[in-house]
Amino acid sequence: MVPGVVTSTFSDAERAAVYRAIAERRDVRHGFLPETLAGDVLTRLLTAAHQSPSVGLMQPTRFVVVRERSVRQAIHAAFVQANAAALLTYGEARREQYAGLKLEGLLEAPQHLCLLCDTDSSRGHNLGRQTMPETALYSTVCAVQNLWLAARAEGVGVGWVSILDPVSLRAILGVPDNIIPVAYLCLGYVDRFAMEPDLERFGWETRLALETVVSEDRYEDHLMKPVEVGGSS
Amino acid sequence: MVPGVVTSTFSDAERAAVYRAIAERRDVRHGFLPETLAGDVLTRLLTAAHQSPSVGLMQPTRFVVVRERSVRQAIHAAFVQANAAALLTYGEARREQYAGLKLEGLLEAPQHLCLLCDTDSSRGHNLGRQTMPETALYSTVCAVQNLWLAARAEGVGVGWVSILDPVSLRAILGVPDNIIPVAYLCLGYVDRFAMEPDLERFGWETRLALETVVSEDRYEDHLMKPVEVGGSS
Repeated sequence: MVPGVVTSTFSDAERAAVYRAIAERRDVRHGFLPETLAGDVLTRLLTAAHQSPSVGLMQPTRFVVVRERSVRQAIHAAFVQANAAALLTYGEARREQYAGLKLEGLLEAPQHLCLLCDTDSSRGHNLGRQTMPETALYSTVCAVQNLWLAARAEGVGVGWVSILDPVSLRAILGVPDNIIPVAYLCLGYVDRFAMEPDLERFGWETRLALETVVSEDRYEDHLMKPVEVGGSS
Repeated sequence: MVPGVVTSTFSDAERAAVYRAIAERRDVRHGFLPETLAGDVLTRLLTAAHQSPSVGLMQPTRFVVVRERSVRQAIHAAFVQANAAALLTYGEARREQYAGLKLEGLLEAPQHLCLLCDTDSSRGHNLGRQTMPETALYSTVCAVQNLWLAARAEGVGVGWVSILDPVSLRAILGVPDNIIPVAYLCLGYVDRFAMEPDLERFGWETRLALETVVSEDRYEDHLMKPVEVGGSS
């Protein structure tokens, strides 16, 4: 074995476990248990996020773990305000449906996690960012998804709350101008995960079949024309 | 068991497999084997990507699988041009180091995958996008990371190439104006994965310790002040 090189392949069981986490990950907005996360569990989740890819090995992601009740309440109030504004944008039929959706678990979840991006950092020496500077932000999103999958394996529910005015979020967490809030998550133990996305179960949207979104060698929009849809994937 | 609910927890072995994929995932730029991916492997990877979270269940991600040699060559030519321009931005010392880095495997990898985002799609009915419209693009990045981890479990190397002018990329793949290219990946079987990121091994950048990027309840910048660094995580 060459030093510095991992050569072993994943067993069938290991591969299946990775796919299981991917298939059974859910956006969780209810059912959070009141216990705060054990320190070692939280550290494993943050480590998983921190091991995510980053452009130029920039590692621009910063984490704020929110447990203080007053901060969680302030975030919840910001959600309530943004959600009320969002509700008004819907026509009558959908407005009622929207109002009935549970879109956050900010008070139930005993901790939140904000992932932010230091897009101005000189780390990575701008490698890979000259043509696509947005990859700094994308690095932080990769961290979210690593954490989300690790959380599923730990029995920890994660809900991404984007119905928040970034200006309010910045004020509450004291985020300086040069740092970009990317994701605000609720985190907590749950004793069950739904089989389907909530938004599908409650009739807000249905899932697309994979074949409707894949093309070969050049971009093609299959959704613009009739396509045989073989069940949701 | 309540219908529609998954209640089983992950075994220790399953949890370890998820963390293994996260820890051993690498950005691969060399060592791609010439065999094209088996159809079922590619389908599993695309399915994993397609199962990623999306704001409002919008599923805005579109995939272009590139196998045609002429298209791969055109992308490679676009990389060469963008990389030459990037090289000129570095001062003398770092320029030599940059020139020595292998930053893509576009001709070696027998297939590429472009992930794009239909940010204008009405799917999801704008839920979650009014305060943070960038979450449509972020949904596509989550798809990248799902695929990346599944690929590690399959023994498939993935390299994200961001040194590409988006205008050239659009022209080569025939991408309409309303669709945003998010990630351009090289994909191929590899027989080994490096223990460390290439950019660390070749001295371009080092990894940060986790504790330097975490704060509690409010944002704090630990990197701006001296901090005890407990080895790379």
